[in-house]
Amino acid sequence: MDRPQALETASRDALAAALGMLAPLLGERLSTAMPVRDQHGQDASYLPAVPPDAVAYPVDVDEVVFILKTCHTHRVPVIPFGTGTSCEGHVAALHGGICLDMSRMNAIEPASVADMTCRVGPGVTRKTLNAWLRDSGLFFPVDPGADASIGGMISTRASGTNAVRYGTMADHVVSLDVVLADGTQVRTASLARKSAAGYNLNQLMIGAEGTLGVIVSATLRLHPIPEAVETALIAFPSSATAIDCAIAIMGSGLPVARIEYLDDVQIRAVESYSKLGLSAGDTLIVECSGDPDTVSRQMAWITELAADFAPRTVTTAQSLEDRNRIWQARHDAWWAAIALRPGAKGIPTDSCVPVSRLAEAVEAARTDCADLGLTAPICGHVGDGNFHLCVVFDPDNDLEARNVETLLERLSRRAIALGGTITGEHGIGYGKRSYLAEEHGIAGLRTMAAVKRALDPRNIMNPGKIIAPGDLPPFD
Amino acid sequence: MDRPQALETASRDALAAALGMLAPLLGERLSTAMPVRDQHGQDASYLPAVPPDAVAYPVDVDEVVFILKTCHTHRVPVIPFGTGTSCEGHVAALHGGICLDMSRMNAIEPASVADMTCRVGPGVTRKTLNAWLRDSGLFFPVDPGADASIGGMISTRASGTNAVRYGTMADHVVSLDVVLADGTQVRTASLARKSAAGYNLNQLMIGAEGTLGVIVSATLRLHPIPEAVETALIAFPSSATAIDCAIAIMGSGLPVARIEYLDDVQIRAVESYSKLGLSAGDTLIVECSGDPDTVSRQMAWITELAADFAPRTVTTAQSLEDRNRIWQARHDAWWAAIALRPGAKGIPTDSCVPVSRLAEAVEAARTDCADLGLTAPICGHVGDGNFHLCVVFDPDNDLEARNVETLLERLSRRAIALGGTITGEHGIGYGKRSYLAEEHGIAGLRTMAAVKRALDPRNIMNPGKIIAPGDLPPFD
Repeated sequence: MDRPQALETASRDALAAALGMLAPLLGERLSTAMPVRDQHGQDASYLPAVPPDAVAYPVDVDEVVFILKTCHTHRVPVIPFGTGTSCEGHVAALHGGICLDMSRMNAIEPASVADMTCRVGPGVTRKTLNAWLRDSGLFFPVDPGADASIGGMISTRASGTNAVRYGTMADHVVSLDVVLADGTQVRTASLARKSAAGYNLNQLMIGAEGTLGVIVSATLRLHPIPEAVETALIAFPSSATAIDCAIAIMGSGLPVARIEYLDDVQIRAVESYSKLGLSAGDTLIVECSGDPDTVSRQMAWITELAADFAPRTVTTAQSLEDRNRIWQARHDAWWAAIALRPGAKGIPTDSCVPVSRLAEAVEAARTDCADLGLTAPICGHVGDGNFHLCVVFDPDNDLEARNVETLLERLSRRAIALGGTITGEHGIGYGKRSYLAEEHGIAGLRTMAAVKRALDPRNIMNPGKIIAPGDLPPFD
Repeated sequence: MDRPQALETASRDALAAALGMLAPLLGERLSTAMPVRDQHGQDASYLPAVPPDAVAYPVDVDEVVFILKTCHTHRVPVIPFGTGTSCEGHVAALHGGICLDMSRMNAIEPASVADMTCRVGPGVTRKTLNAWLRDSGLFFPVDPGADASIGGMISTRASGTNAVRYGTMADHVVSLDVVLADGTQVRTASLARKSAAGYNLNQLMIGAEGTLGVIVSATLRLHPIPEAVETALIAFPSSATAIDCAIAIMGSGLPVARIEYLDDVQIRAVESYSKLGLSAGDTLIVECSGDPDTVSRQMAWITELAADFAPRTVTTAQSLEDRNRIWQARHDAWWAAIALRPGAKGIPTDSCVPVSRLAEAVEAARTDCADLGLTAPICGHVGDGNFHLCVVFDPDNDLEARNVETLLERLSRRAIALGGTITGEHGIGYGKRSYLAEEHGIAGLRTMAAVKRALDPRNIMNPGKIIAPGDLPPFD
């Protein structure tokens, strides 16, 4: 297998030619205004903004096809854009080109209650979808922090607190309509719940970060809204006991709906920020859902099981109001962390390790922070082995900024060393590209490069994300 | 994207050269004996056997690498082989070459209870794995009918009765070690439960039917053995009421462990064959598992829910003995069908449609059988929309054999027309290759072909399966 060919950077002439083709079709839905470009070159990460040369707002598949064919002909990069809430610079126009803002492709078709599916445009956000679904008795469970678009969530293989029970975006896409680099339309799968019919194009597109094509429609898997929900907040004397308790709960076979970890530093930060009356200590938030009787019995077992790990406090909640109070601790985690230092910035990390190595990974991360003099509360989707540090730092302090770099490097290298991954749910973008070969090996990276080149030989689809020609060493 | 290049059929000289390289390494583990070759050219399908030129029995990764490098150099086809229980001619050596019998790579590493994972060689069979796991409190749920090998189950994206709760092979592979066509070793993923790190090589290899590489090791996801299990056998007056009841159960959000359908013809065949005292009628077998209290309450709800669909009889079972008696109806289905006509052969079909279209698909299949004068009991994994006809026919009767062809064609075309797939769990092999373009469209097939060519440019990996150069029309 070869490397992808060297990037064909959009020349000014090529760009002008492409824009000249697109302007009559898109009219005011093609913008080169600087504020619009600036807004589309920056995501939620701390990576530098790189604005595209223009922003297009397609409203249907035919327009996307026309834009792609045009950009393919002229070798102009195309960067698909959802809500700009990605965390690794996914939308930065590293090689210029045209940003495709998909927000106007936001139709939602009626849900199929029998199939528990719903077809949506890529620009629909997860909260909009759930509001639309409310009367159907169904819901869409994948819940990254932001109100991200479905297209973006698919492209970054997003997950969130519900993943331990319901799975990630990888488990919620029945079928996609994708426009490939040359304008070819492909449907990745039928609408059947499972299939053994050829290569899994569906999973190939999920997590591809817009580097293999543009998602123009998605049929999603939904779930019945549970009748009852109970939540417990349990504070432990150490991270090890909290995580060991989580492992015991997972191993019990109880169908836990959510199980989140907040370390002592995070809990103190939240208490200082939100005044929720939380006890200090490494904390688990555990939730069960289903029919009321089953849920209350499962919750009783969980608190009984937790008793073996010497918890400091156990608080359970049934009512929506009480449960919301518990979850507020988790929802406020990011803002509470940043508030620890007025004027500071936050960087979210995203390691994911085998659950058996999680306690070790968390402890080592804490030691790193102490070594480097950094403040970084930790929270995580402990059932999946996925944890985030919110690294709080002053970007104008050069030493601190270097120490943050060192911390990020150690976290990525350690995740790999422990058999895990450098990203559980945020993706690679260009922020983590330099570690991808360490995780997958050169052979793995070459395999990915071969796939990329096969589907996008001109390297126009979100170039510079996940993999780029220079990432691979020359052949022997 | 281009088509895969024309197949390089193994020339006699190339084959001799490759065998000359391999013989010193493999000794008696390289065989050209006709009985050995015959045995490896035939799977469980009714498709004609096509024996390979030789059979190799590698015992470790280094041997697989050496074999692949050798075959790559000499452009000799390589056909990975598990237990030969595939259903669409997957192991037929359509272009000659060397069969890799993986049965001796059958090590099982100790399970990680905390991570609920286990690493195995590809030659381990599912029953062997579960026997090994028994004392760990964990089990591996994917259960195709045969005692297939893990490597084969991964390669065909197999599933079975447990898929409705636990998912298919696609949901049970944490990470794979794969040797690619040119001998390159790739690990498809880390050991983390989830990841957003680049293209999903893991899912690309699952279901690839040995056409992209040879699986040499797999880390599998396991589950806690449930404490209690209850089973219900419910007979209905029609297929529509049985299937509507299944949809209602699925939509209730109850965590059903298994939900299987057997049509009236199948039930009568089983009763005639096994004398289990079954009532006639389209039948569901529904199973719940978990803690004893929850399970018995869930089962009570299920029978209550079923009452709305006017069941003829409802039988529930708690003890292993009673449950086994119920499941015997399902396990004997195939043999009971074939016994309907002494001397007849059976062909298993494998449509999978959205659950909302399942009743329609089953009814239409019955009408087809009546039209064509064919006997074909139906059973299926109704929670997934996946159903099998066991077509019983006399292969020496030309008219009947032609009618079987017509039936198979109608089933595949109808599955596609109803938004489903031509194969839910058996795969494409070469038996269903001709329908793959109808399901995925030419653009989908071209995309698959591009991936195939990127990873196996010489087309030596199980050539002629899933996709072949002649399947694509010339470019415009």
